[in-house]
Amino acid sequence: MFQSAAKTLSVATTTAATLTRGTSFSIRRYCQKTPATLRVSEAVSGAKLGANVKVQGWVRSVRPQKANLFLHVNDGSSLQSLQVVASSELDDPLLTLGSAVEVTGTLRKSPRQRQPFELEADRIHVVGDCDPVDFPFKIKERHSLEYIRQFPHLRCRTNAFSSLLRIRSEATTAVHSYFKENGFVQIHTPVITSNDCEGAGELFQVEPSSPNNEEGEKFFSVPAFLTVSGQLHLEVMSGAFSRVYTFGPTFRAENSQSRRHLAEFYMVEAEVSFTQSLEDLTKVMEDMFRSATEHVLAHCAEDVDLFHKHVTPGHRDTVDAMLKNRFPVLTYSEAIDILNQSSQKFAFPTDWGCDLQTEHEKHLVKHCGNIPVFVTDYPYDLKPFYARDNLDHPEHTAAAVDLLVPGVGELCGGSLREERLDLLKARLGEKKEGVPYTSRLCAV
Amino acid sequence: MFQSAAKTLSVATTTAATLTRGTSFSIRRYCQKTPATLRVSEAVSGAKLGANVKVQGWVRSVRPQKANLFLHVNDGSSLQSLQVVASSELDDPLLTLGSAVEVTGTLRKSPRQRQPFELEADRIHVVGDCDPVDFPFKIKERHSLEYIRQFPHLRCRTNAFSSLLRIRSEATTAVHSYFKENGFVQIHTPVITSNDCEGAGELFQVEPSSPNNEEGEKFFSVPAFLTVSGQLHLEVMSGAFSRVYTFGPTFRAENSQSRRHLAEFYMVEAEVSFTQSLEDLTKVMEDMFRSATEHVLAHCAEDVDLFHKHVTPGHRDTVDAMLKNRFPVLTYSEAIDILNQSSQKFAFPTDWGCDLQTEHEKHLVKHCGNIPVFVTDYPYDLKPFYARDNLDHPEHTAAAVDLLVPGVGELCGGSLREERLDLLKARLGEKKEGVPYTSRLCAV
Repeated sequence: MFQSAAKTLSVATTTAATLTRGTSFSIRRYCQKTPATLRVSEAVSGAKLGANVKVQGWVRSVRPQKANLFLHVNDGSSLQSLQVVASSELDDPLLTLGSAVEVTGTLRKSPRQRQPFELEADRIHVVGDCDPVDFPFKIKERHSLEYIRQFPHLRCRTNAFSSLLRIRSEATTAVHSYFKENGFVQIHTPVITSNDCEGAGELFQVEPSSPNNEEGEKFFSVPAFLTVSGQLHLEVMSGAFSRVYTFGPTFRAENSQSRRHLAEFYMVEAEVSFTQSLEDLTKVMEDMFRSATEHVLAHCAEDVDLFHKHVTPGHRDTVDAMLKNRFPVLTYSEAIDILNQSSQKFAFPTDWGCDLQTEHEKHLVKHCGNIPVFVTDYPYDLKPFYARDNLDHPEHTAAAVDLLVPGVGELCGGSLREERLDLLKARLGEKKEGVPYTSRLCAV
Repeated sequence: MFQSAAKTLSVATTTAATLTRGTSFSIRRYCQKTPATLRVSEAVSGAKLGANVKVQGWVRSVRPQKANLFLHVNDGSSLQSLQVVASSELDDPLLTLGSAVEVTGTLRKSPRQRQPFELEADRIHVVGDCDPVDFPFKIKERHSLEYIRQFPHLRCRTNAFSSLLRIRSEATTAVHSYFKENGFVQIHTPVITSNDCEGAGELFQVEPSSPNNEEGEKFFSVPAFLTVSGQLHLEVMSGAFSRVYTFGPTFRAENSQSRRHLAEFYMVEAEVSFTQSLEDLTKVMEDMFRSATEHVLAHCAEDVDLFHKHVTPGHRDTVDAMLKNRFPVLTYSEAIDILNQSSQKFAFPTDWGCDLQTEHEKHLVKHCGNIPVFVTDYPYDLKPFYARDNLDHPEHTAAAVDLLVPGVGELCGGSLREERLDLLKARLGEKKEGVPYTSRLCAV
């Protein structure tokens, strides 16, 4: 009876891809009397125990038994789904994997072992049905990532993708929190820019897709590109705010099909004024790494466990080891000594002055106990013109630093900036390609 | 004597544009013994009163008197500068407007009226000097925005720009906080995309700036554009997470030189599943507006006051009125009645079915007491194909809403999404230009 009342109200019969929003005003008036809506993440942790609540989400499993019907409902607020127990009378042929439902009932302790709380339903409303034949995912089947990627409009309903996206959302929050708590001002550095940072990356150029009305008139007065770095703008801003950062999309037109090359990716960049040594930078790098990692472990524990269980077994121990001790610091010269004393054969040379390759970086990380390690004071000739000259000899180095981490190699890099105008001018004179920089300041 | 020791340590002699970071390792060892560093924002509020502290920043004023030297030092952490009082013996010709200094001393209550706390200096170190002839800003002079904009690398040192950027940083924080506290997952929708949302905006196209190595091979397999909206991607994500948002750069290639047209700007977009009426949307819009405004007023009180004093006098009363009451809701039909009953003459027609122009929106806001107002249920034919059909007649409307605010007009808009597949299909059939949408889902 109640079930059929629910049906009368339902105006939504949708496919898996068209979703579940919007019903009419007459329904709104009805629903104003309905109980408080709870997210699944709240329900599975026992919020409002004993209260009459409403939960909305998508069906992950259906188990009809003789007297009872068992559902699992997920709304993306957590990896866990909520178990719903209902009388068999509430069963409905439209209750299938992927269908959108609204369940009203009482939240109670579960007599079953696998979850502490469950929802005893007194009403189940199928807001949007889902044809099990069309829906590409099957109950209890673990689909490969290769299979899942064929369904970009549905893949975020899988555990792997939803966990990844929740982790990404929390990691973003953690990065912003770290900088905010440490007095940094967030700067939105421009995406469209006329400067190309170190002149190194392959650039994307930007033009209006349809030509302007007026003959020969250009939209931008100079060639415009997608940013490869906000560094130039941040350097300017750090001269007013002392501590600034940006965290936004960055672009490289590198035509490489690898796990390490993306046309579009997110990057954190920070500039700090009044630094006196590389320690001022390594502290920011290490503290940010640590606080973001701890935040994600604390706020997405189940999502992280999913990956540690199915994608990178054993990696949790590595993460715990990373957080236990301060990160060691090696100079580049010490790193070269370690590489040369190793019994490992490297494909790339390890002479003083050579750039560290991924194989070298991974060896150094392993040598230090498989924890993140800073390498400082790189050969002066390997670093861009703005890296601060250590004025040492015979091994001439610059005050630059990279953070190497297990499994990846270089995660971040930085340098003290050369502030001695005479040294900067001399180096710009040597490296003619560096000169256009200063004249591009007007692109800020 | 101490002053000359400071000089010996200083290795930085810079121009106004080259800044103040980086000194050598020998200095680091010295500085490890120096007192705790305080931001100016902390010092002016009396943190560490009586303690020996170090403050770093840029000189905003210099007043040498017979026995004492008075400085104001600003580090961008607040609009306020810190007053520094020193013996005249610590004076230095390099202490000029714009020079970077590090001041060590004792924070004490000020006997002077204009600020409650001041720093009694026992050491002033000029980290970077600034030639007062080259430096474009002059002490105590109020420079026009037209003048300031000639110096993009220095303008962030002016009160107007630094206040604006601090407000922007805090407003960004407030937007993220609102969504996070309300269970939304943040999604980084792609900047480079092959979909063009409503097909309305002028697009920027993206190509690698240098051609690929292989003859005839395209970087992207389809034409690629800068995003005009993340809506399509968010709609997909809302089918997994229930509540999602994005807050990132958005692009329009509109060749208009106006205050309301930018090639690149930041936009908040959100999608909510299981909505039942426009109230579910107006609540999000109003709560976000309110919480972001309150956050900025609380965290940037002085910065906001600067604008209310010098840029928009009287606007503070408007802001306070906005926050006092819930925002009124008018239907489009009610809005048209109000316009037609007004004695004001409008340039654009106000017949039922006409789009509301900025002059109309401003009139409606004024009519409601100069506070934000929602207008709902617009003519069906004015809204995109995915807006939910109210199935009313003879005045056929869609469940769409705009928020109009004082001084601006439309600030945000939204709609219930049409979930009834038969209605969607029928409308796509009518509007042929809408059809490519569904096939573009593969761009997710």
